[in-house]
Amino acid sequence: MREFFAVRTVPEALSGFRPARRTVVEVVGLDAAFGRVPSAPVPAREDLPGFARATVDGYAVRAADTYGASEGLPSYLDVAGAVRMGAAPDVEVVAGAAVTVPTGAVLPPGADAVVMVEHTQEALPGTIEVLRPAAPGDGLVRADEDAAAGSELAPAGRPLRAQDLGMLAAAGVTTVAVHARPRVAIVSTGDEVVPPETATLTAGQVRDATAPALAALVAQAGGAPDPRGIVPDDPAALADVLRRAVAESDVVVVSAGSSVGARDETAAVVAGLGEPGIYCHGLAIKPGKPTLLADVGGVPVVGLPGNPRSALVVFRLVGMPLVRLVGGCTVTPPEPTVRARLDRDLPSAAGRLDVVQVTVRVGIATPLFGSSALLSVLTAADGWIAVPEADTGLAEGAEVEVTLYR
Amino acid sequence: MREFFAVRTVPEALSGFRPARRTVVEVVGLDAAFGRVPSAPVPAREDLPGFARATVDGYAVRAADTYGASEGLPSYLDVAGAVRMGAAPDVEVVAGAAVTVPTGAVLPPGADAVVMVEHTQEALPGTIEVLRPAAPGDGLVRADEDAAAGSELAPAGRPLRAQDLGMLAAAGVTTVAVHARPRVAIVSTGDEVVPPETATLTAGQVRDATAPALAALVAQAGGAPDPRGIVPDDPAALADVLRRAVAESDVVVVSAGSSVGARDETAAVVAGLGEPGIYCHGLAIKPGKPTLLADVGGVPVVGLPGNPRSALVVFRLVGMPLVRLVGGCTVTPPEPTVRARLDRDLPSAAGRLDVVQVTVRVGIATPLFGSSALLSVLTAADGWIAVPEADTGLAEGAEVEVTLYR
Repeated sequence: MREFFAVRTVPEALSGFRPARRTVVEVVGLDAAFGRVPSAPVPAREDLPGFARATVDGYAVRAADTYGASEGLPSYLDVAGAVRMGAAPDVEVVAGAAVTVPTGAVLPPGADAVVMVEHTQEALPGTIEVLRPAAPGDGLVRADEDAAAGSELAPAGRPLRAQDLGMLAAAGVTTVAVHARPRVAIVSTGDEVVPPETATLTAGQVRDATAPALAALVAQAGGAPDPRGIVPDDPAALADVLRRAVAESDVVVVSAGSSVGARDETAAVVAGLGEPGIYCHGLAIKPGKPTLLADVGGVPVVGLPGNPRSALVVFRLVGMPLVRLVGGCTVTPPEPTVRARLDRDLPSAAGRLDVVQVTVRVGIATPLFGSSALLSVLTAADGWIAVPEADTGLAEGAEVEVTLYR
Repeated sequence: MREFFAVRTVPEALSGFRPARRTVVEVVGLDAAFGRVPSAPVPAREDLPGFARATVDGYAVRAADTYGASEGLPSYLDVAGAVRMGAAPDVEVVAGAAVTVPTGAVLPPGADAVVMVEHTQEALPGTIEVLRPAAPGDGLVRADEDAAAGSELAPAGRPLRAQDLGMLAAAGVTTVAVHARPRVAIVSTGDEVVPPETATLTAGQVRDATAPALAALVAQAGGAPDPRGIVPDDPAALADVLRRAVAESDVVVVSAGSSVGARDETAAVVAGLGEPGIYCHGLAIKPGKPTLLADVGGVPVVGLPGNPRSALVVFRLVGMPLVRLVGGCTVTPPEPTVRARLDRDLPSAAGRLDVVQVTVRVGIATPLFGSSALLSVLTAADGWIAVPEADTGLAEGAEVEVTLYR
């Protein structure tokens, strides 16, 4: 193994490691579509709103009839009728006439503007004074102004947002073709690892903290987590579990054991799973160097460091983008960030990405140190900063961008 | 109604309108706990990791035995045995001795440091040279270093993050007491409003775009959306539906109709629902002024503007915080934001909050204009900026904070 040990930078891995697997397409209703990823652009079948609508409470008019109108010299118009909400107009706007319309009502034929009621006053019963001129198009939206038939209501590859669902509903599109949620197998390994349910630990045992946390990150990336339990440090047993996981999943994640021996064993097993095989045995990142990436017939296999903190740092940076990729997501949803100033020097080695956990208070970022074996550093953190490969450290007072946890 | 018309600013409403309702507490497993809000701090029952552990592959030693060690003058130690992963040590570290330990293994008794294997070399079979001195505590974590018994693993009121779930799992906490998801009744009103399923619209009809979009925002705020269909513009029917919704829900949202008449009717119905009643009939915000807030026996009732775009703007600003409040969330999860420069002047009236939709490209924010009746302005936007009450506009080139949609 050692002679083929390949370390990649995180940017290299993000751009260079792109297995071909994509999930199948399924059709879901709007009530299940929030955050789902359309597999194709969703077109409008018809114009929206479909008819010219008033956008103010007022009077539908011919704009030309109001030209030059002012408080001192109003235009006088006869009120020829009214349009009711939700009903077709039964009256036309002829020259010198106005028709009462509420916000949202259909513009009656003959009208090309709606004058706000606030810009009118009743002169006599059945006659209004218009106090300001209206231009054609004022106070209304056109029949195809929200969407023209055939235009794109929502793009492919971007998770559907609340307003996208609103637009689809407005257009009568109540089902959407989306990528299926990637099934992400989560395999834990290690003779020392026991299920979280274990009430009392014997010396040397640790409960599996990584799998439940990874399941949450998988869900956040749009995937369906599929925890497959804990495999002892036995290459044959691991090969068995991983072979089945690859056959049944869209992405496979395995916590690769924390000792060098366990990692080498995991790498050997993954290397034997299939072609094209291992992309890298390590990432230039701290924490998280012992990360393995492999492509088994298009299915990404991610071997994570054995300690939960490193595993979660790496999975956020490299694993979640893979889940999104396989799930057809081409527009990554934005993450919350905040700019802050470092309250101390932060040394860093050149050539690797340093991920530093921080708390943030009133614009000040305080790095949290401590062994990468400690999960408490992650739970105490508000977010993290990345010191890029080219930097050899950041000085006290430097402005940094903190990605905030949620 | 009109004489009691009360308009509040958004900051006033956010701080002043805080109905008492909180959801009940329920117990969920870790696999259903992501994003849920603990109703009380979750304490550690025991020390974590529970035993001192090696954090490197190497040799457990007495640090004093390595003082002064160097490449030129190494310390020689006898290898007295090895600790296996996941097993209790069966060997002690006495003066002049070392015990082989893999990363994660229990520190054997007598040792107070672990020397990395890279800082040693084998001198003779069974004897190692230590090439660098170790200090007590090097290469290990203490038995209570991740969490001491009784300390807080996760706080009350903050949605559980991935690493929080990891910490709970590590501590053997597999169920958590959380606030139930607030049940949020979503009532649509309007004679002109028809279900999204409606294949063909007659003139004047619009499909209900607001309810499906609100359902997504409710879910994003941790609530359980409960769409209750469309009520015609009939005060008795609306009163009936709202009375039942208040009795059965934690929050009630009603799209209050778009015309002035429909809004007044809705306000009258809401005013009759119960005490203490209406908090405000309007918000100093654009779009979204015709927003009604009421407290009916502790249940917040939110009357939204009739047009979907205004409704969604207001619900993000005022409705989602109410859903979180009722759901026991006291620490609002961070939203994604980006700083950008305006590419044009942005006029705004003083005394109200202006919410402006924008696209963002390489640091440039371009405002999107268009009638508040147009949903397409929201679907075209990458995010929004808020021009505060005190401002009378922003100049081209001004730096603004854009809250990004996701």
